[in-house]
Amino acid sequence: MTGNRNLQVPAGVRDLLPPEAAALRELEEELVAFFKGWGYREVLTPTFEFVETFQAGSPAGEEGSLYKFIDREGRVLALRPEMTAPIARLVATSLKREAVPLRLCYRAGVFRYEEPRAGRLREFHQAGVELIGVGGEAADAEIIALAVETLLKAGLQEFRIGIGQVAVTKGVLQDLALPPEAVARVKGALAGKDLVGLGRLIDEYNLRGKKKRRLELLATLHGGKEALEEARANFDQGGATAALAGLERVWEALAACGLEKWLFIDLGILRDFDYYTGIVFEGYVPGLGAPVCGGGRYDDLLGRFGYPCPATGFAVGLERLLMARGEIKGNGQDKGYLVAGRDLAAVLRRARELRREGITVIIDGQSEDRRQAAARAAAGGLTLVWVEP
Amino acid sequence: MTGNRNLQVPAGVRDLLPPEAAALRELEEELVAFFKGWGYREVLTPTFEFVETFQAGSPAGEEGSLYKFIDREGRVLALRPEMTAPIARLVATSLKREAVPLRLCYRAGVFRYEEPRAGRLREFHQAGVELIGVGGEAADAEIIALAVETLLKAGLQEFRIGIGQVAVTKGVLQDLALPPEAVARVKGALAGKDLVGLGRLIDEYNLRGKKKRRLELLATLHGGKEALEEARANFDQGGATAALAGLERVWEALAACGLEKWLFIDLGILRDFDYYTGIVFEGYVPGLGAPVCGGGRYDDLLGRFGYPCPATGFAVGLERLLMARGEIKGNGQDKGYLVAGRDLAAVLRRARELRREGITVIIDGQSEDRRQAAARAAAGGLTLVWVEP
Repeated sequence: MTGNRNLQVPAGVRDLLPPEAAALRELEEELVAFFKGWGYREVLTPTFEFVETFQAGSPAGEEGSLYKFIDREGRVLALRPEMTAPIARLVATSLKREAVPLRLCYRAGVFRYEEPRAGRLREFHQAGVELIGVGGEAADAEIIALAVETLLKAGLQEFRIGIGQVAVTKGVLQDLALPPEAVARVKGALAGKDLVGLGRLIDEYNLRGKKKRRLELLATLHGGKEALEEARANFDQGGATAALAGLERVWEALAACGLEKWLFIDLGILRDFDYYTGIVFEGYVPGLGAPVCGGGRYDDLLGRFGYPCPATGFAVGLERLLMARGEIKGNGQDKGYLVAGRDLAAVLRRARELRREGITVIIDGQSEDRRQAAARAAAGGLTLVWVEP
Repeated sequence: MTGNRNLQVPAGVRDLLPPEAAALRELEEELVAFFKGWGYREVLTPTFEFVETFQAGSPAGEEGSLYKFIDREGRVLALRPEMTAPIARLVATSLKREAVPLRLCYRAGVFRYEEPRAGRLREFHQAGVELIGVGGEAADAEIIALAVETLLKAGLQEFRIGIGQVAVTKGVLQDLALPPEAVARVKGALAGKDLVGLGRLIDEYNLRGKKKRRLELLATLHGGKEALEEARANFDQGGATAALAGLERVWEALAACGLEKWLFIDLGILRDFDYYTGIVFEGYVPGLGAPVCGGGRYDDLLGRFGYPCPATGFAVGLERLLMARGEIKGNGQDKGYLVAGRDLAAVLRRARELRREGITVIIDGQSEDRRQAAARAAAGGLTLVWVEP
């Protein structure tokens, strides 16, 4: 053993002590119960799988963030970086005979190798849903409505969900006719809302006219219905008109049921995973540097597993949600009784009676002194029950 | 991508479809809530850690079962094979200033590379407790009583918990004065209750007199108080007498509170992990080839993390417990309503009203035909609510 290595944990992963563990588990259970109320059924997938499963969901560039290892049979495995690709694989195999739409949900730890940066976890927890087998605006609206209601359910009020359409965004980027590494730089500036950087790239690549205007608009267009109208006036390249009309119908439906105040249009949204094909969205909370939730439509992913069908979904980052809520309740322990005494069997029996009444009971069956036991109970906020032999 | 590799999962890991996922999650939540009723607070530790953390808990020979990999900083990490060593590390660092005893619990996926054998999972789920900072019979009795009550709470009736004492068992093995590889073979025969194999080893190593009788007794001694008396008459090597007297006091306390019928003495119990130092136990269910739970006292482990103190605990294998219960309830989905119609916003609004009443509601906001919607609702066991525009 080198030094005190065995007292440390690797960078980016951490212990959750009782208060934080209780908060995380409560949130997890609350969200999954809420998803079930919308008809989503929970599934579990393995923590590691063949790397090919995740490659079906990630662009080559994302592979750098996979935790890979080789098993004794010489095959490359990876810890899951997200749950959408594994659930697509599961549906394409075990659930392919079930009638669609399928509504599935999950809670899971996921793993991404991130460069060491403040607050970037390499293992974190998600809860999410996948709505598989239906295209069209009704499914898009269901998923966005569920995202809004999930954040409300979790106790957030000050959040906004930005909605984009990758068909529009990808179209603008393609029309730039730039080499891949240039597109990657433009994407980076867009994703980071880095207007200064984007301006420099526009100069560097000598973009003018429609190309320049559209790119600037992707980065700055932001708002409600009026933003959609401006988008329609400017984005008329192949497919964009139809995509924007669909987005408008989703917007109308969500507005009609009173969710408009939590929503805005943002055509600059670029999600981490390459598999998105239509409406995408991200939830933001003031003061949090990264989205608290995100998702969208991925109509091509299930086809990569041999089961072509449309799908949409989203995931919530639980650590981020807890951070956004800014409060960790309780100390992870219900208050209760300390049952103490010299007679171990009598203590065990009395404790059992109390627990039957639903009371949390800590036992001490080797306590010689009632006063010491009383002091310990008081220190722990417990009520002492002293058992005479 | 080679062939259909991306449709398969690695050997020994698997998906849990909705009915099984629901059963596992319900059990997990039920057990942790039960542990909290005894004053145990939940903690989480990272899924992977530096390999040294687990080596502090495992004998060198067990290392073969670790899933190891190397991070980008060149350090060897491993997926956790169990939770006791990580919790010992956590206590020795983050909780070392808290007053003992500490009562901690967990639910976690754990990973062990096992040779492919029927039913051996390489990723499985555990729930368990650790009682840290107290030695003595009261803590041993608390942990065994909690194990019995946990299995009862989980709905098992036909189980027995075998209780051993590794101080006695290790003493007998040491007194054989055999080389390590011979001891390993004897241990294997004992652990497998392989009396024929043990007999052959006794012949092969030419064991006679007390050595032979004690070894046979380890393998066959089995029962209630009378077994303890027989043990006392035969095992009188250094430390055994005191260890058996302590075991008897634990037995008496558990018997006095009515738990005797689920218990028996079995001095042949050898646990997987090397860190046990005192009373150990395993829970068995008829028809299940492996223990459903196991644990015991490990007074030296925390010292290896620089925080010497006694401790005991146990873990339940959730997949095994579900198998023992032999029933997977429900289909993972609460029955509820299908709210369908042509007007998406009206459907969303109506669904929200119903969900406020606690009803599970699946929505279909693009349904053109009431009769088709009724058929779909009937097929899914749902009640149709048709929303007119």
